Amino acid sequence: MSKTNPARGMRDFLPADVRKREYVIGIIKEVYESYGFEPLETPAVENLETLMGKYGDEGNQLIFKILKRGEKLVEELQSTEVSESPSAENSATPQLGNFENLSDLALRYDLTVPLARVVAHHKNDLPKFFKRYQIQPVWRADRPAKGRFREFYQCDVDAIGSTSMAVEAELISAVSQILKRLGFEDFVIRLNHREVLADILDTAGVPGDRHADALVAIDKLDKIGQDGVKGELGSRGIPDSASEMLLSIFEQTQKIVDEGKNVNRTIVSNLINIVSNEVLTDIGHILKYAGDCSIQLDPSLARGLSYYTGAIFEINVPDLAGSLGGGGRYDGLIGMFGKEQIPACGFSLGLERILVVMEERRMFPPEIARSTPADVMVTIWSEETIGESLKLASELRSHGLRITVYPEPDKLGKQMKYADQIKVPYVCVLGENEIAEGKVTLKNMKTGEQESLRINDVQAKLKV
Amino acid sequence: MSKTNPARGMRDFLPADVRKREYVIGIIKEVYESYGFEPLETPAVENLETLMGKYGDEGNQLIFKILKRGEKLVEELQSTEVSESPSAENSATPQLGNFENLSDLALRYDLTVPLARVVAHHKNDLPKFFKRYQIQPVWRADRPAKGRFREFYQCDVDAIGSTSMAVEAELISAVSQILKRLGFEDFVIRLNHREVLADILDTAGVPGDRHADALVAIDKLDKIGQDGVKGELGSRGIPDSASEMLLSIFEQTQKIVDEGKNVNRTIVSNLINIVSNEVLTDIGHILKYAGDCSIQLDPSLARGLSYYTGAIFEINVPDLAGSLGGGGRYDGLIGMFGKEQIPACGFSLGLERILVVMEERRMFPPEIARSTPADVMVTIWSEETIGESLKLASELRSHGLRITVYPEPDKLGKQMKYADQIKVPYVCVLGENEIAEGKVTLKNMKTGEQESLRINDVQAKLKV
Repeated sequence: MSKTNPARGMRDFLPADVRKREYVIGIIKEVYESYGFEPLETPAVENLETLMGKYGDEGNQLIFKILKRGEKLVEELQSTEVSESPSAENSATPQLGNFENLSDLALRYDLTVPLARVVAHHKNDLPKFFKRYQIQPVWRADRPAKGRFREFYQCDVDAIGSTSMAVEAELISAVSQILKRLGFEDFVIRLNHREVLADILDTAGVPGDRHADALVAIDKLDKIGQDGVKGELGSRGIPDSASEMLLSIFEQTQKIVDEGKNVNRTIVSNLINIVSNEVLTDIGHILKYAGDCSIQLDPSLARGLSYYTGAIFEINVPDLAGSLGGGGRYDGLIGMFGKEQIPACGFSLGLERILVVMEERRMFPPEIARSTPADVMVTIWSEETIGESLKLASELRSHGLRITVYPEPDKLGKQMKYADQIKVPYVCVLGENEIAEGKVTLKNMKTGEQESLRINDVQAKLKV
Repeated sequence: MSKTNPARGMRDFLPADVRKREYVIGIIKEVYESYGFEPLETPAVENLETLMGKYGDEGNQLIFKILKRGEKLVEELQSTEVSESPSAENSATPQLGNFENLSDLALRYDLTVPLARVVAHHKNDLPKFFKRYQIQPVWRADRPAKGRFREFYQCDVDAIGSTSMAVEAELISAVSQILKRLGFEDFVIRLNHREVLADILDTAGVPGDRHADALVAIDKLDKIGQDGVKGELGSRGIPDSASEMLLSIFEQTQKIVDEGKNVNRTIVSNLINIVSNEVLTDIGHILKYAGDCSIQLDPSLARGLSYYTGAIFEINVPDLAGSLGGGGRYDGLIGMFGKEQIPACGFSLGLERILVVMEERRMFPPEIARSTPADVMVTIWSEETIGESLKLASELRSHGLRITVYPEPDKLGKQMKYADQIKVPYVCVLGENEIAEGKVTLKNMKTGEQESLRINDVQAKLKV
């Protein structure tokens, strides 16, 4: 007997879950489409080389790799003496190079790198400005934890081909619209710019070649706190003096945010002496164009991914430690796949994060929360009348009703108990008498009320 | 520079493709839901042991296996001397046992085995009769060929918990309804029963322990022809005399089908002396309950999968060599995962097959075939008016229109050219004059007609 649990960190979604997921996905799609974004889908499986080296060292380790097959695998196993190469001291964190030749394919890790590949590959089939959304699962071999899964959905929206800040503004506007439509009122979109971070790092005295390392550490400020970040900065070779200045700048910023008065204006005026005019103008444009969205400038915001080059965003709500989503501008990534540098900017919403908060706050509309497979269940009286019951079901369906049929002759009490279990609001009893009279008995499962009706009247009754 | 093509046998779906796929999936979902089937989703990745041994030897070979990670992989590579174990003669078709310990996870191969696992695992959360549909991709390491991909979608519908033939009838009815809704008129649902096949195999003299082998061979009749099947039967140890009798029985059946008069009745009367009464009654019930569907009894129909135990189906259209879908009853599979045997029956539609035929026959409605990202494009006049254009877009969206904004200030001619490229039917020009007058110029891209309108009148104009 095989085990029946899903694989570690993966989940089965029963009907009530799927309905909630589809409700949220439906709204996300509708809003993205209302902004002129088009749907794209890419394969779950990518060539390994497409993904390797795009997500930094930590990312590389978390990519699920697929074993080569047949002869090719045999060849690899015979030719490489893999069993001897990993030395004792690095067996805990194996060198990827040793195993890379056992695998040729990998599972999609995010939706941005596949997009960059698609844009480079299908350049001639795509419009000059390509606005796409993509809602698909991604896989990461992370240690599963509360709210952290190995398979999860990303809902990405990206605009390719323009460096205008109108792009950033529209993305922020679209994402805000989605959250409002879902019923969120208290979200904040935090905004920063990679150059602001770079300038702050310079000011603090972090050496230029340590910037990427410093950002990975700073991105964990929420998770591991000041001391944790300080430790990590140290272990990444950043001098203590720089770490301390850096953390003090961020602390100051946090104070401004906490005070909550004219935050964006105060922060901009503090940045004037640190940051270039160009970057300040860009930030100003985003704040102006997306003026009706709840944007909060936050110079301490750092996104872990290394491919961002300009504005970066993150969405937060008070009762969730992590973010509901994030994104930014990445003008260099597509150039890694094609001859041409093509500017791009995008946003990614985390479906499971949104669902967790919506579940806790009971934000689902009643028809989604209720979750029943049908409007009416039709009973079966006997082997001989199965055909009649199926015919009645067909007829009711042709009026747009969702009809389930109890699948076999059984005691009426048992059939009613099942109807209760699946929470259908109505049951149509079709017994011998009813068939003889060309009628059905319609039972309201909530009130218990029963009524004898002609078949043609059932549908009118239920539309009330 | 990384390569930009998708992995071998995998496909990117650009917006026009996705729209067609979603149109078909939308109808499939709607019809399944109208029959009371509920949505289920399972992870793309399953524990390897969940899948192994469920699809026969050929199936086992086609499962994509995921490499173990980190320390566990190092341990496996150090402890097993894999590089020496495969002997020369079987290196072309490696023994799975040799590599199994390198992998702990695998990609979903179909939707039926995961369903069986889910039913065994979540038994207490599911109703007594669980009717579910599931539309998700599956992966097979098959040699890619025309119309055969390594990632493809299955659209499955299954009813769990009843042995009544009302189940088979409802599945046939639902699937027929889907094909009709999509515009198919000439499909036939071929029906057979595993016991009919077993009885024919017995009559022909195929030894009982060779039945499964014989079925795998017979299933290829369409693909490799009589001689091919004969060869394969021989190589699987089935005596020539039995092969010949078997093929002659199937040839006779084919004649009856080709004549096309009272086919089902003629076949049933031919089966009376070969098949048990019970099976004939079941077949009779299916034909009666699903009387308005186009069902053709076909004793030569064999499905390759080994888990079927009762009725089996396949859907064919004249201009496609393979089938649009198939299925059957599998009363033993769930018992492989749980203590309890639970009867089950299902149908699987192949999304890509359906799409291929619909594409060839141009069956998509015009609004799907046309494929445009928006109803209106709004132009941008200058850096200073970006905010105005974005505001206009928001306003039009609030009336339910899909609006895209040209992302940056540019020559009007270029903006119009882009509008042409993405095939939007209308463009809203918002220049300095228009802004001053509180108006917009609306251009019909098909007729070239232009009109100056108040913003409030744009929406009314487009609703016409």
